[in-house]
Amino acid sequence: MINGSDPILLTPGPLTTSPATRQAMLRDWGSWDAAFNRMTSDICRDLLTIVSGQKDFVCVPMQGSGTFSVEAALGSLVPRDAVVLVPNNGAYCTRLLKILERLGVASVELKFRDDEPASVARIEEMFRREPRITHVAQVHLETSAGLLNPLDEIAALCKQHGKSLIVDAMSSFGALPVDVSKGGIDAVISASGKCLEGVPGMGFVIVRRTLLEASAGNSRSLALDLHDQSAYMVKTTQWRFTPPTHVVAALRAALDQFIAEGGQPARGARYRRNCAALIDGMASLGFKPFLDAAVQTPVIVTFHAPNDPAYDFKRFYEAVREAGYVLYPGKLTEVETFRVGCIGAIDANEMCNAVAAIGRALGTLHVRLAA
Amino acid sequence: MINGSDPILLTPGPLTTSPATRQAMLRDWGSWDAAFNRMTSDICRDLLTIVSGQKDFVCVPMQGSGTFSVEAALGSLVPRDAVVLVPNNGAYCTRLLKILERLGVASVELKFRDDEPASVARIEEMFRREPRITHVAQVHLETSAGLLNPLDEIAALCKQHGKSLIVDAMSSFGALPVDVSKGGIDAVISASGKCLEGVPGMGFVIVRRTLLEASAGNSRSLALDLHDQSAYMVKTTQWRFTPPTHVVAALRAALDQFIAEGGQPARGARYRRNCAALIDGMASLGFKPFLDAAVQTPVIVTFHAPNDPAYDFKRFYEAVREAGYVLYPGKLTEVETFRVGCIGAIDANEMCNAVAAIGRALGTLHVRLAA
Ligand SMILES: Cc1ncc(COP(=O)(O)O)c(C=O)c1O
Ligand SMILES: Cc1ncc(COP(=O)(O)O)c(C=O)c1O
Repeated sequence: MINGSDPILLTPGPLTTSPATRQAMLRDWGSWDAAFNRMTSDICRDLLTIVSGQKDFVCVPMQGSGTFSVEAALGSLVPRDAVVLVPNNGAYCTRLLKILERLGVASVELKFRDDEPASVARIEEMFRREPRITHVAQVHLETSAGLLNPLDEIAALCKQHGKSLIVDAMSSFGALPVDVSKGGIDAVISASGKCLEGVPGMGFVIVRRTLLEASAGNSRSLALDLHDQSAYMVKTTQWRFTPPTHVVAALRAALDQFIAEGGQPARGARYRRNCAALIDGMASLGFKPFLDAAVQTPVIVTFHAPNDPAYDFKRFYEAVREAGYVLYPGKLTEVETFRVGCIGAIDANEMCNAVAAIGRALGTLHVRLAA
Repeated sequence: MINGSDPILLTPGPLTTSPATRQAMLRDWGSWDAAFNRMTSDICRDLLTIVSGQKDFVCVPMQGSGTFSVEAALGSLVPRDAVVLVPNNGAYCTRLLKILERLGVASVELKFRDDEPASVARIEEMFRREPRITHVAQVHLETSAGLLNPLDEIAALCKQHGKSLIVDAMSSFGALPVDVSKGGIDAVISASGKCLEGVPGMGFVIVRRTLLEASAGNSRSLALDLHDQSAYMVKTTQWRFTPPTHVVAALRAALDQFIAEGGQPARGARYRRNCAALIDGMASLGFKPFLDAAVQTPVIVTFHAPNDPAYDFKRFYEAVREAGYVLYPGKLTEVETFRVGCIGAIDANEMCNAVAAIGRALGTLHVRLAA
């Protein structure tokens, strides 16, 4: 175990961070300090690079959890008279719809099953049926099940039809390839405490510069006004309101490690190894993943719960936690599942240990899996 | 110096935290974990106790900086057809007005000079002149100058006139007495990284339970919906969106130290000693505080800048920082000033060292103060 006696978090953020990332929080930073503000701008530069946005995009950091950045993006970048299509295959898509409703922006929901990726053909059909659609808000990796949506195809389609595409890449950013330079994507949202392996407490929006510049005055919120946040930072080099200084310092350290590891390709490869070790190991215990392999992301895996009456998630969770691993409950409404994250400062060996712990927990709880 | 070679922050948040507070961030916490959620509820219980709110109030934590909690309180607790009086003697009062404007809530500004406390008589006069006023939004400690507003008197007046009082106690909470049990106050807002000496990254609103319960559906923001945030926490024990786990853990550690120190009275007394050491020492160098002693809080002191042409804040700041102390720029529009915070994990001895460093910086920069 990396942390001695602390449990390993197999949860998709907060996750297990490296000691170097946590140690970066041992120092206090002044928010007016030039060194701190250089740190912020270096972070933004590195985040832009990860999605090839150096040329036409701006990175705007935002205090709060990832949802705060999602709401900041939708509330600042989408005009009030827009119509936003939301392909929906899970809870985070539903959250986009909820935010739009609060903001008073019209939306069109396009339903998919929670194991079914958004279909480009059906999105295109919606464009034809609802020509008033101006925007698409798309979750890249639906963390509810761990499902991959075909972002490149959707971006190409939006480009072709002249729709503005805003991407919630919360749990994919840094692990799966996202390339805004190819066109089609106007904004990408993520947060510090996911695949970048920082600690939670801030998010960011990578937004096309011309769109950001045109968004002045859109936001009805002061705190979540992306344009104000960016304009103030450009003018002063500082955050508009008190930054979460220690979270920022941890993200800086996490990005250093991300770059040293080899960036997104290497991070994605490690997660794929983690995921393969997990799925193989769990299969040998009799667990079946909820998703087809073709749409399974290497970030989080949903497993069907054992259908033995002796199984109870709470007790299972406690037993596995006792052994040093923190699992995640399922987030699906129709099938009983649980989830295991593959992300964080962990490797395939750790995943094997986790599987072994899960196997022992089943034994202790006398839970049997159908053959 | 407490931090070895790291500078001491004489800034009103972020500030210098104790090693124990920072070390609490060396561990990762799962947001679904019972131990973490107990930590959150213990924090809320302790925050309520600080303002004697155990009986009729609820503490709702909120991700983001302090402003996020201010906007959450105003956007969730104030109905859209309210009229809010804002006694204004500084930048944080102006921010309340700005937030209300964004929210589409009518406000009435009552202007005071930035060295003049809000006057109860003039507030009462406004109540008579504008009977449509339903609420008062009051900054307790205007951090722009370090000015104390007479909260107890304003609360008594609001109680008498049946106005709902929402208090921005960002930089006073924990240092100056606030007692919601006496009536008159409906909500008190503060954050982790001020006088509680945690790290920045979360705020909280202490709100009268009946008012919170009546606020369902008010908020146009999802992220900043105080009612939703609280309802979810009551139902699940968890935060609604990913909590800033390390910031929460640091606040828990900071509150343990706050309680061990003797709570608000002891914290306030230490800050008064810091403030006296600062003002005395600075006086001996020829610096004059901007505020009268009667309205000066022991949290942050605004000093007139030297009126020697050789003085330049940026160079002065750099020289003092070089010596290990981070000052704060002034936030007043009409007079040139700078500010020195008295809060954080520092004592009067540290303030004397800071004054000595300031004296040496003046020498190095050949800045002379008028006798
Ligand atoms: C795809 C997606 N969107 C949004 C969020 C919300 O982020 P947060 O919980 O930080 O608000 C998450 C969190 O896991 C997510 O996975
Ligand atoms: C009185 C007051 N209100 C509001 C704020 C805003 O807090 P934040 O910068 O954390 O958003 C501050 C910050 O110092 C403050 O002093």
